[in-house]
Amino acid sequence: MDYKVKDLSLAGQGKKQIEWAEIHMPALMEIRKQFEKEKPLQGLRISAVLHVTKETAVLVKTLKIGGATVALAGSNPLSTQDDVAAALVEEGIHVFAWRGETEKDYYDNIKEILKYEPQIIMDDGGDLHAYVHENMPQLKLFGGTEETTTGVIRLKAMEEQGVLRYPVIAVNNAFTKYLFDNRIGTGQSTIDGILRATNILIAGKVAVVAGYGWVGRGIAQRLRGMGARVIVVEVSPLRALEAVMDGFDVMPMSKAAELGEIFITATGNINVIRKEHILKMKDGAILANSGHFNVEIDVKGLKEMAKSSRLIRPNLEEYELPNGKRIYLLAEGRLVNLAAAEGHPSEVMDLSFSNQALSVKYIYENRGKLENKVYNVPQEIDETVAKLKLKGMGIEIEPMTQEQIEYMKQWRYGT
Amino acid sequence: MDYKVKDLSLAGQGKKQIEWAEIHMPALMEIRKQFEKEKPLQGLRISAVLHVTKETAVLVKTLKIGGATVALAGSNPLSTQDDVAAALVEEGIHVFAWRGETEKDYYDNIKEILKYEPQIIMDDGGDLHAYVHENMPQLKLFGGTEETTTGVIRLKAMEEQGVLRYPVIAVNNAFTKYLFDNRIGTGQSTIDGILRATNILIAGKVAVVAGYGWVGRGIAQRLRGMGARVIVVEVSPLRALEAVMDGFDVMPMSKAAELGEIFITATGNINVIRKEHILKMKDGAILANSGHFNVEIDVKGLKEMAKSSRLIRPNLEEYELPNGKRIYLLAEGRLVNLAAAEGHPSEVMDLSFSNQALSVKYIYENRGKLENKVYNVPQEIDETVAKLKLKGMGIEIEPMTQEQIEYMKQWRYGT
Amino acid sequence: MDYKVKDLSLAGQGKKQIEWAEIHMPALMEIRKQFEKEKPLQGLRISAVLHVTKETAVLVKTLKIGGATVALAGSNPLSTQDDVAAALVEEGIHVFAWRGETEKDYYDNIKEILKYEPQIIMDDGGDLHAYVHENMPQLKLFGGTEETTTGVIRLKAMEEQGVLRYPVIAVNNAFTKYLFDNRIGTGQSTIDGILRATNILIAGKVAVVAGYGWVGRGIAQRLRGMGARVIVVEVSPLRALEAVMDGFDVMPMSKAAELGEIFITATGNINVIRKEHILKMKDGAILANSGHFNVEIDVKGLKEMAKSSRLIRPNLEEYELPNGKRIYLLAEGRLVNLAAAEGHPSEVMDLSFSNQALSVKYIYENRGKLENKVYNVPQEIDETVAKLKLKGMGIEIEPMTQEQIEYMKQWRYGT
Amino acid sequence: MDYKVKDLSLAGQGKKQIEWAEIHMPALMEIRKQFEKEKPLQGLRISAVLHVTKETAVLVKTLKIGGATVALAGSNPLSTQDDVAAALVEEGIHVFAWRGETEKDYYDNIKEILKYEPQIIMDDGGDLHAYVHENMPQLKLFGGTEETTTGVIRLKAMEEQGVLRYPVIAVNNAFTKYLFDNRIGTGQSTIDGILRATNILIAGKVAVVAGYGWVGRGIAQRLRGMGARVIVVEVSPLRALEAVMDGFDVMPMSKAAELGEIFITATGNINVIRKEHILKMKDGAILANSGHFNVEIDVKGLKEMAKSSRLIRPNLEEYELPNGKRIYLLAEGRLVNLAAAEGHPSEVMDLSFSNQALSVKYIYENRGKLENKVYNVPQEIDETVAKLKLKGMGIEIEPMTQEQIEYMKQWRYGT
Repeated sequence: MDYKVKDLSLAGQGKKQIEWAEIHMPALMEIRKQFEKEKPLQGLRISAVLHVTKETAVLVKTLKIGGATVALAGSNPLSTQDDVAAALVEEGIHVFAWRGETEKDYYDNIKEILKYEPQIIMDDGGDLHAYVHENMPQLKLFGGTEETTTGVIRLKAMEEQGVLRYPVIAVNNAFTKYLFDNRIGTGQSTIDGILRATNILIAGKVAVVAGYGWVGRGIAQRLRGMGARVIVVEVSPLRALEAVMDGFDVMPMSKAAELGEIFITATGNINVIRKEHILKMKDGAILANSGHFNVEIDVKGLKEMAKSSRLIRPNLEEYELPNGKRIYLLAEGRLVNLAAAEGHPSEVMDLSFSNQALSVKYIYENRGKLENKVYNVPQEIDETVAKLKLKGMGIEIEPMTQEQIEYMKQWRYGT
Repeated sequence: MDYKVKDLSLAGQGKKQIEWAEIHMPALMEIRKQFEKEKPLQGLRISAVLHVTKETAVLVKTLKIGGATVALAGSNPLSTQDDVAAALVEEGIHVFAWRGETEKDYYDNIKEILKYEPQIIMDDGGDLHAYVHENMPQLKLFGGTEETTTGVIRLKAMEEQGVLRYPVIAVNNAFTKYLFDNRIGTGQSTIDGILRATNILIAGKVAVVAGYGWVGRGIAQRLRGMGARVIVVEVSPLRALEAVMDGFDVMPMSKAAELGEIFITATGNINVIRKEHILKMKDGAILANSGHFNVEIDVKGLKEMAKSSRLIRPNLEEYELPNGKRIYLLAEGRLVNLAAAEGHPSEVMDLSFSNQALSVKYIYENRGKLENKVYNVPQEIDETVAKLKLKGMGIEIEPMTQEQIEYMKQWRYGT
Repeated sequence: MDYKVKDLSLAGQGKKQIEWAEIHMPALMEIRKQFEKEKPLQGLRISAVLHVTKETAVLVKTLKIGGATVALAGSNPLSTQDDVAAALVEEGIHVFAWRGETEKDYYDNIKEILKYEPQIIMDDGGDLHAYVHENMPQLKLFGGTEETTTGVIRLKAMEEQGVLRYPVIAVNNAFTKYLFDNRIGTGQSTIDGILRATNILIAGKVAVVAGYGWVGRGIAQRLRGMGARVIVVEVSPLRALEAVMDGFDVMPMSKAAELGEIFITATGNINVIRKEHILKMKDGAILANSGHFNVEIDVKGLKEMAKSSRLIRPNLEEYELPNGKRIYLLAEGRLVNLAAAEGHPSEVMDLSFSNQALSVKYIYENRGKLENKVYNVPQEIDETVAKLKLKGMGIEIEPMTQEQIEYMKQWRYGT
Repeated sequence: MDYKVKDLSLAGQGKKQIEWAEIHMPALMEIRKQFEKEKPLQGLRISAVLHVTKETAVLVKTLKIGGATVALAGSNPLSTQDDVAAALVEEGIHVFAWRGETEKDYYDNIKEILKYEPQIIMDDGGDLHAYVHENMPQLKLFGGTEETTTGVIRLKAMEEQGVLRYPVIAVNNAFTKYLFDNRIGTGQSTIDGILRATNILIAGKVAVVAGYGWVGRGIAQRLRGMGARVIVVEVSPLRALEAVMDGFDVMPMSKAAELGEIFITATGNINVIRKEHILKMKDGAILANSGHFNVEIDVKGLKEMAKSSRLIRPNLEEYELPNGKRIYLLAEGRLVNLAAAEGHPSEVMDLSFSNQALSVKYIYENRGKLENKVYNVPQEIDETVAKLKLKGMGIEIEPMTQEQIEYMKQWRYGT
């Protein structure tokens, strides 16, 4: 069997989505042009577990154009776009994915794509890597890539325990991945998610952002750009000081709780907004989370306290507290930018997936030379991705003169 | 017959929407409290043609609580929220409106609400005023209000021709209406509309805003706040100079056309983006309009030139030009914030509708004393609305001392 | 006698200053080019009381090049730049001004410039207008101009009392004057004055701006641009609401006093910062005024309360309060941008003085046709100044098509 | 001999300057309080070569209060504030420094402070470290600190060559040093320097910033905050991409040269603005440097090309090019924030010098336990400084719960 998708007749619609993405992924499209000419992946077999979205489609089409055979399964039962999956089948990709898979379907699909005897595997979360390690000792792999922080952590644990069986490139750690993804991508899409869920006016509101890491500062900046008065809540004195110097008010959640009208968590930590905070909030306060896991707001505590709750509109749930105040939780405390909006725009995925494409090429070209370790994306690839993106955007940077190159070297070696 | 709506069983859902709006309309809710206590509209009959939205519901409920009998028809066949209409019936409002009315339905509904023999009429666009002047000479009206620029222009023409039969307050001209509505409301909702229609990344894009009036500067500011590089196109040297001093690039459309990636019109004028501009644009350029009428982009010209077109996703239409480039038109060139997003947030309508409520009270209290003219909203009402809004937001302003009041007088009279 | 200045040998230095100003006054330099070609002021005698600065020099040189004979006295005993005065003498201007004039000198100089029997007079503050009305009934004047708000108020009072003897153009009221002068010019120079007086870091500080008129919002915006957390204190609910929607915190001075680290007044009113506020302030609080008169901070009250005071550095005076806290007053509460920095940059004066030059031309061309009233700068001149400025900055605006001109007319008349 | 300063009678004036600094150095003042109580430096002898400014005075007074004996020489012949030096003598510091030292004086003073047989030495630039290594083999040192990048590079070279004779803490590398110093401090003071040198209006100008490192982005942000249109010139594609996503235009200098009105270099590299760029610039272009060394603008090339030059006002030199255009160079291409303004505000030095004070304490407490290496400031000290700064500013941060501390650990170890 060659593929398994929901409905092949959706291919036309899927093709349009993919083309819309392609326009906004100029770096990856530049790579595609090179791949087309040079066929650097000729003869390579790749199996990938990725969100089957229009952006992923642009990636796997590029890998195929580079000469590879690609089998693709979805990395999340709810993220597959069935029209895109159908279009990819027409493009000759072996797709095994549909929206609404059961857990059994999910693992069946992983088995299907592994039947192609991949030489490189690509993963988003680490499940494919784990499956291969546990069930497919016979596979001869040149290496693999990993898209997420979570997956990288799992792989590093395997490396430390000495069980990692092939080299892996942690795409997540590329500068062109985390900086733009977290700050620029999540910054915008969090605003987008809040607006779609609530249609409130942001201007003039007091917004509380918990966490001033890359995600938090992206959100804080965008909220200010929409006219909000922004309070930052931070545990790190270094980051808190940065937030103050960037012109934000900084205070503990216990105080911010009384002032805020919108609360957004982006800390990576647990129970950042707790019962005692919620009870202090103003009537009408809105709670949203932009952190990866839905543990930042104590949703369970909120539900326990609430006298009643009801869904006002999609992704907007009202909870009435014993004190009579109403609290509004967006998307059940899950990532608001994915749950209530559409996640990262194509322009952001362009960077991540360009790193993916070039990392695959790198593993293939260096097969046999890499150790069974978790590698960062080579600096060269990171810079190449930035260069291609700029080129695709029509932006030229300053070339260094020979004199300047010499001067920098001399400096570095401190004479 | 007492009402005519789509489906009364939607009332529960409508009630939730109205309550969600009420939380974000603190000024109008303050007025409601006063109205509840003082019943200033006791015995008054009002007929209104307004968009039947959750915000309008908050207004008409307030008028009823003030003592008035209210009959309501919709001002646009597509803007009626059927659940809100149903909820208003349950509140005792005589609603004649549903989504998808024909033109005949529209006028039939106007006739229905006029059967209540209103003493004050409220209008959005001027159709009700025109109908009453042409067909109901027998109506004894204390006066009317008008929400829009367009309606005000029609009424002023009637005043000039000496045919206006009752005093009208131009709510549109209140400072608390146009400043916040245009700059703050449209600024945010235009971003919202673009994101919902396209899901592009705004950061790093070159955005061209045509028009630097209140709407245009609101949009330019929000685009900058999202990380765009913004070019302003203006015909007025005064506004152009302001735009430059505000840090924007300013140039003619013929040049901006070559640089832009997103184009947004907000000029109030016709054919601001023309064929000759479109032909110069980059592949992938996106066109949107935030002006009231869909005349600012030459959509007809675009369609004539295009070799082909197709709908990529809702409100996003692709046109392929003879030169091979693809141009993307949002919402067919209609107001992108209404067509692709939800229009003004409740917080903005709070200001407009507080002016409406107090203007109705003013007309009733001054019945017989006003001339058959178009009046601006009295400065006092405008300031009261601002005060109530601030109070509702929990914001206190500085009181003037007696000494300061004296000093300002002295200054004014120039000693 | 032809002139009276401090030291003619300073002319060389003065010439350099004037040339530096000319580079940054492109609009006025464009007018000079036209004046040179067309000589529109041929035969005209002008007497002017203006601050004798490098920017004024660019103006009076332009008037002379246009054909006029110009006599110039200083409008403030401390604002005359002696090197510029010397350079102007060499240019053939009849200058009577030096730094450090006594009040007698000041009026003697006015007498000197009136000996030239001016046909148009230019004034900054209204003293020249007043002097002419009281002492020179025999002068035959085509008209006059006035630069300041204060002067305009005095002249309007004269108009109302029916004693104004010639037409006056209120240059102060030009859009290209007040908008850029107040918001852009004072915004920047207030920051400049504070930095020169204190060398404090603005980032992270809590700054309180009293007044959200054009000056106040310019200051608030620039403070935010430097990283401050800005609180606005306003008496007008309309302006207060704007400030909130622009993302600022708004509160009464009694609360802001406890939070602020820098306080800047820009209200045009008296005793905005009073003893009761000062007593609440933090140790180290800095007080500055950017309003025209030094009445906004109760300096007298501060001095009365203080246990001791001392000058820390120029324009920075420390007051120790009975409560042990130290308060720092900049420039004795006088306009901090003039007293501690250099006032408006040439670029801003370019706009005001272009209005002056064209207003003088307008009066001359329309001599005999104007009434003895205070006129606003004709809209045409205002727009011409903006156009010339843009041209001088190399910025092109959008031309209107014939179709658009027609459309706007039709709109205006509401069909 | 105990001290050598210019004029002891200046002590009163110096004392006021120091007190003004103390108000703005809350972190260091908190450390002083602890030092006063705990006397952690009891018995320690310190010799320091630092800029003898009011901020340095706050540091050395603190060290003395902590129990140390301190001898101080200046690190630059032109940076000594003689009044501060005098005041420090009165405080019991052994000061050997005056403005206008010759090179011989400079080394004589180093000899003087070494007579005190220091156990810890503090340096700014590395000259003291070098001198001690070459000439004082007999000194028994617990260790040293170094303030600058340049000094750290020299010391690292010594470490690599195995000749470093004592442990050194590189204060320069503290997060609380470089982030705030470079971005916040230089950002503001560069604006300040440009305004003092030129008094131009920044709003509406096209400003070109070369370099988007911490310094460059601080400057770019502040320029935008003052209303400029900012172009960034970068050699790194990664930084260039960040600049674009932050909303700046990015292009090579060869293009920016034609558009810019103000140019500011902050690259750390040589000849960033060269003859070929200067020849393309507009008449009136202004050149400034904010990089450490005056090598970024090719001043020599400019002088060679120029037909003539003259000083317009302090720090503002005009060069007339063969093409007739005039170019304005600020402060001869030296650091504009130091040369034309006052360098870093006290608030910024508060962070650096708190790291200094705590690093000295750390070396003293760990004497005998450290290797002869260049150490970074311990993370703990860095965080303590941030905490003290926040405390001094009255800002509270969020405490972590026990549950959160556990959660973060678990995360780190990837279960």
